[in-house]
Amino acid sequence: MPGPLSGIRVVDVTTNVSGPSLTMILADLGAEIIKIERPDIGDDSRGMGPFWEGEGVYFLHINRNKQSVVIDLKKESGREIVYDLVKTADVFVENFRFQKAEKMGLGYERLKELNPSLVYCSLSAYGQDGPLCDRPGYDAIAQADSGIIGINGAEGAEIARVPVSVLDQGSAMWGAIGVISALFHKQKTGEGQLVTTSLYETGVFWVGYHMLSWLATGNEPKKNGAGHTAFAPYGAFHASDAPVMIGISNNSLFKRLCKVLGKEEWVEDPRYKNNPERVEHRENLRVAIENILQAKTADEWVQLLVDAGVPSSKVKKISEVVQDQQTEAIQMWTDVKHSTIKDFKLPRLPFELSSSPVSIQKAPPKLGGNTEEILNKLGYNKEQIEQLLNDGTIQIEAKKLESHK
Amino acid sequence: MPGPLSGIRVVDVTTNVSGPSLTMILADLGAEIIKIERPDIGDDSRGMGPFWEGEGVYFLHINRNKQSVVIDLKKESGREIVYDLVKTADVFVENFRFQKAEKMGLGYERLKELNPSLVYCSLSAYGQDGPLCDRPGYDAIAQADSGIIGINGAEGAEIARVPVSVLDQGSAMWGAIGVISALFHKQKTGEGQLVTTSLYETGVFWVGYHMLSWLATGNEPKKNGAGHTAFAPYGAFHASDAPVMIGISNNSLFKRLCKVLGKEEWVEDPRYKNNPERVEHRENLRVAIENILQAKTADEWVQLLVDAGVPSSKVKKISEVVQDQQTEAIQMWTDVKHSTIKDFKLPRLPFELSSSPVSIQKAPPKLGGNTEEILNKLGYNKEQIEQLLNDGTIQIEAKKLESHK
Repeated sequence: MPGPLSGIRVVDVTTNVSGPSLTMILADLGAEIIKIERPDIGDDSRGMGPFWEGEGVYFLHINRNKQSVVIDLKKESGREIVYDLVKTADVFVENFRFQKAEKMGLGYERLKELNPSLVYCSLSAYGQDGPLCDRPGYDAIAQADSGIIGINGAEGAEIARVPVSVLDQGSAMWGAIGVISALFHKQKTGEGQLVTTSLYETGVFWVGYHMLSWLATGNEPKKNGAGHTAFAPYGAFHASDAPVMIGISNNSLFKRLCKVLGKEEWVEDPRYKNNPERVEHRENLRVAIENILQAKTADEWVQLLVDAGVPSSKVKKISEVVQDQQTEAIQMWTDVKHSTIKDFKLPRLPFELSSSPVSIQKAPPKLGGNTEEILNKLGYNKEQIEQLLNDGTIQIEAKKLESHK
Repeated sequence: MPGPLSGIRVVDVTTNVSGPSLTMILADLGAEIIKIERPDIGDDSRGMGPFWEGEGVYFLHINRNKQSVVIDLKKESGREIVYDLVKTADVFVENFRFQKAEKMGLGYERLKELNPSLVYCSLSAYGQDGPLCDRPGYDAIAQADSGIIGINGAEGAEIARVPVSVLDQGSAMWGAIGVISALFHKQKTGEGQLVTTSLYETGVFWVGYHMLSWLATGNEPKKNGAGHTAFAPYGAFHASDAPVMIGISNNSLFKRLCKVLGKEEWVEDPRYKNNPERVEHRENLRVAIENILQAKTADEWVQLLVDAGVPSSKVKKISEVVQDQQTEAIQMWTDVKHSTIKDFKLPRLPFELSSSPVSIQKAPPKLGGNTEEILNKLGYNKEQIEQLLNDGTIQIEAKKLESHK
């Protein structure tokens, strides 16, 4: 069964992490992605390590299901090919620096002339206006600017970014939501539109709860370690050998926890009666819980807690997650045929559709691996393609960079 | 202009953070959300602090643009109302414990009989299968289980969760992508379907890059503090008064950084020539950069770096982000009229659509504030409504809980 976006064609001039993550989502949903890469080097993420049989894992992760076409966008002849592609496309996605697309002749106003029903998505660093909109954007920088890093980690600990690129991946997801919503609107009305998102907007929205807390109380949100401002007990509690995560958000769960710990009297203790009181006495609670937890190992406690219906877990390593029975049972891994990497596999998107499924059909493309095929389909003949090859506008089988080896 | 999902009706029986965040996205996109809440207490998040004029800020954040209908789903007469609503709806969203919806008579198979073109979204903790699928799920627990917490923070520092509910909010976004894609498919084919997502799947996907890194190299991903496995120099570097974030992902940015630091000779230094060499010598680089940074304040360095086009920032506080000129310029805040909170405002979603805009039209609802209106629209007459009120199936103006005061 084809994915829900089958039949949708996307022209993708993005690089690095955010933009390609956005078009990966559209790709797994069944859209055709024509990924335009610059000569010789291609997408910067091809050169980001670590490497798997010479291929950057970032690139491998977020570029499955795409076709690679190498075009020099600095050349007028290169832009002309993009214009031809845009005329046949439903969606165009760019993540250039602010207004660079306009300067290159690839801005929304220009492309809309060629294709009025185009959905054009611009993914930027800081949005379309304001004192920061010219700044280059990278995940960690925007995490600092949007307040995420300021509240990450334990109080007094060294500064730490969230280690999973929440702004690159998050802005990709918001952009995808915008693009698919715009396609829904287009299907209904025939009308295209401009979709904009950015790393910074994503970061500011991620801290929404903390911003509202500050507006409501005037208390500056602090670093909470493994805890949560709103709930107690909630966080990491040390057992005899390792920490145990416990998350209690209501009285019913607290009652179950008390039973497992042999402290049923806590349920009626005025310090712990409801969540607001538990939050006030959270440090008391933490010490008391850890005193009890010292009697057994983390594995033993997690089993007891989970059996009693209390949210609890150990802190897993990445290698454990890859091989976890749960990951296996829900089939997070898809085996993908790759021309040079043996036993290659990729994680599927974290949702499933029963009638128009998301899927990984193809390995990430080699640089320029689809240039000829796509130009052929556009109606370019053999002579024209040779001409474009000779003048450096396109590349068909780009040579590998030294740094990729 | 109406949002892209205007005309779409969503029946929402979710509570807490993940499910309501999902339907908030659909709501801001213009869908009509009928939020079904249990009698007396309503959505658990109404009781989660801190409170703004007595209203929980979590609830306020993620329930704008919705209508609240209080129905006791434990009663057959309550489920009958939901069935009537489902017959008129496009989408149904639930985030009960695993298979609880089925046990309550609200599973996909049952509702599909009533409305074959229904898009049914189930947002669970650990997915639809496997040894963990029965477990209750909370953001921090699933962060530990999916490996995120294991790599968050600085090496040796206390355990810390990512402080912005990436799994609650992230699974909400994946669910929204699934639902909107399914609506796109439905618009084309008339066919409904089941959409599933979970906190755990979201977490496993967030660590995708780290999992592939481990598969490629066999090296267990470590806690990196503010740094990034793939790039150097990248992270927090101490200036004379405060840390400065710097993110360098390619040679061109490194060259600009060297110029600002007065170390142009580093560009040709074999230790720093390309990113892989810089990653290898990252500790050397860090010490050398911090030695230079001691000469000026963080503000001075950020200005110099940014002027030179180097990604850089200070680490902002939440209160600074709320009031930041950039946040203001891109209009992240929407003033919302609220019956009891003066100067109430909420952050908009982090993307914009030019022709069918996302928007915040209405404050979060009072508990049961729309029960009567919705039942009237469904065709229930005054007598029937009084009967349902008297037998406790519905509530029209629910009393406030002690803990909400």
